[in-house]
Amino acid sequence: MDFELVKSFLEKSSSGVSSEDIDSMPFRFFEPMIMSGLKVDLIERGRVLCSMKVPPRLLNVGNSLHGGATAALVDVVGSSVIMTMDSVTTTGVSVEINVSYLDAAFVGDEIEIEAKALRVGKAVAVVSVEFRKKKTGKIIAQGRHTKYLAVSSKL
Amino acid sequence: MDFELVKSFLEKSSSGVSSEDIDSMPFRFFEPMIMSGLKVDLIERGRVLCSMKVPPRLLNVGNSLHGGATAALVDVVGSSVIMTMDSVTTTGVSVEINVSYLDAAFVGDEIEIEAKALRVGKAVAVVSVEFRKKKTGKIIAQGRHTKYLAVSSKL
Amino acid sequence: MDFELVKSFLEKSSSGVSSEDIDSMPFRFFEPMIMSGLKVDLIERGRVLCSMKVPPRLLNVGNSLHGGATAALVDVVGSSVIMTMDSVTTTGVSVEINVSYLDAAFVGDEIEIEAKALRVGKAVAVVSVEFRKKKTGKIIAQGRHTKYLAVSSKL
Amino acid sequence: MDFELVKSFLEKSSSGVSSEDIDSMPFRFFEPMIMSGLKVDLIERGRVLCSMKVPPRLLNVGNSLHGGATAALVDVVGSSVIMTMDSVTTTGVSVEINVSYLDAAFVGDEIEIEAKALRVGKAVAVVSVEFRKKKTGKIIAQGRHTKYLAVSSKL
Repeated sequence: MDFELVKSFLEKSSSGVSSEDIDSMPFRFFEPMIMSGLKVDLIERGRVLCSMKVPPRLLNVGNSLHGGATAALVDVVGSSVIMTMDSVTTTGVSVEINVSYLDAAFVGDEIEIEAKALRVGKAVAVVSVEFRKKKTGKIIAQGRHTKYLAVSSKL
Repeated sequence: MDFELVKSFLEKSSSGVSSEDIDSMPFRFFEPMIMSGLKVDLIERGRVLCSMKVPPRLLNVGNSLHGGATAALVDVVGSSVIMTMDSVTTTGVSVEINVSYLDAAFVGDEIEIEAKALRVGKAVAVVSVEFRKKKTGKIIAQGRHTKYLAVSSKL
Repeated sequence: MDFELVKSFLEKSSSGVSSEDIDSMPFRFFEPMIMSGLKVDLIERGRVLCSMKVPPRLLNVGNSLHGGATAALVDVVGSSVIMTMDSVTTTGVSVEINVSYLDAAFVGDEIEIEAKALRVGKAVAVVSVEFRKKKTGKIIAQGRHTKYLAVSSKL
Repeated sequence: MDFELVKSFLEKSSSGVSSEDIDSMPFRFFEPMIMSGLKVDLIERGRVLCSMKVPPRLLNVGNSLHGGATAALVDVVGSSVIMTMDSVTTTGVSVEINVSYLDAAFVGDEIEIEAKALRVGKAVAVVSVEFRKKKTGKIIAQGRHTKYLAVSSKL
């Protein structure tokens, strides 16, 4: 194995955007970059349903939705569902995130993202997040997100 | 709970970059956006050590490294370590990613990311990825990444 | 901290059964020990629903269903759902198991365990397993189980 | 697929021990059943090293250490390492357990189990647990265990 290949894979910046432009991007650009285009279809206590069209910017080298972007969406959409519970005043800090990848979603595919609160206690919240193809209902990914809510006290 | 708050949290785009600019970003912009600034410090068979300075663009609302960005780095740095094994010709497709978050890393903090191959078989590879503060060695996050390698055949 | 306490916690054998009796237990006693009392309520393609009454032998020191027993049930009930898919001739080998614990189940509580196939491909299968209280529907635990199916070839 | 096969797999009790004998086993028999034979080799602050010889009773149908037993050992050995930190008075309740399975361990194989505290805070503890073959150092399994410690207050 040519270690130079590994190095160039990790230090690449071939995106049509210069690394200077990337390095000067604003504070907290990560969330807008992930979430732009996300639409909320339904909010109820303990459940949020969103949809989005897979955008070109979130593709991986295989031209399907990047697994890292999927994990980031588990984080943010999972956190939002905690806000729907009337007992909470914070979405807390992340303790653990896990995602299983089940199918590929390609550019332009309409996907829906459903987050459900499995438990929202005083200190610990656990939510599930499922990604499906809107047309077929086929599951693309399923994850869980654990958060610690009592952040004013020490984790 | 005001559901409008949840909706505005999910559909926000307040980043100093217009949603038009985000929507017109190039194919596969996600990886450069995550990885710009990543330096490879060491590559050996089954092990990759990188470092980076936490950049403003990857912060969350608490101004620490976004958990979704951490998960995305588990994906890409974890995949790179598979490339260091002489038996493989692909980094495969993701089956599962999980991350535990242990401490916050703030803007400018030097962090190191160490990926180790736990197993690279003919079909399934599992790697661990640990994030530490460079100065103190304190663990920020630890995750695992499972990939399916025999992608020419059907998953 | 008294390290002797830790040692005695790990090397204890106070169960009313002598360690000689435990050590002479038959091959593969683990599964019957976990599964005795499990009833199958429904089997369909991609879905298995079971129920059981939490038995005294599977309790932890807090007198609720042991998390390790729950994880073992994710394994076996999760594997069984793979057998309901007509394309498979094996339940494969475990690649990953994860479980979130959401509520306690006490001795005599009727619980139901629902396993669903999220994906059963030629090589990789992923199932979800959910534990609920039968009376209230409240979720006790939720997990996922990833298996590699093509075990005749090399993992 | 013959659903009767699935049913008999789940409701089987062929272990040389009658289901009556299993059903009359004492309270909390699960832990001694899993842990009998476990030896503590080293305890220090934040780290516990144990060893055991894979016993016949903990085998799966493939005659290797059962994945459910491995997960249960992640739970108990992972919990024990929390007891080595001087700040804690409880090992808390389980929030999440995950395990990746990397290699098979057969009856009589000497294995070592190393648990390390990744973080033990006031409320949340996360530990890693690694299983290795004693002779070769080869990793059999690696997992993480998250616990909530402030159990006197409400989870």
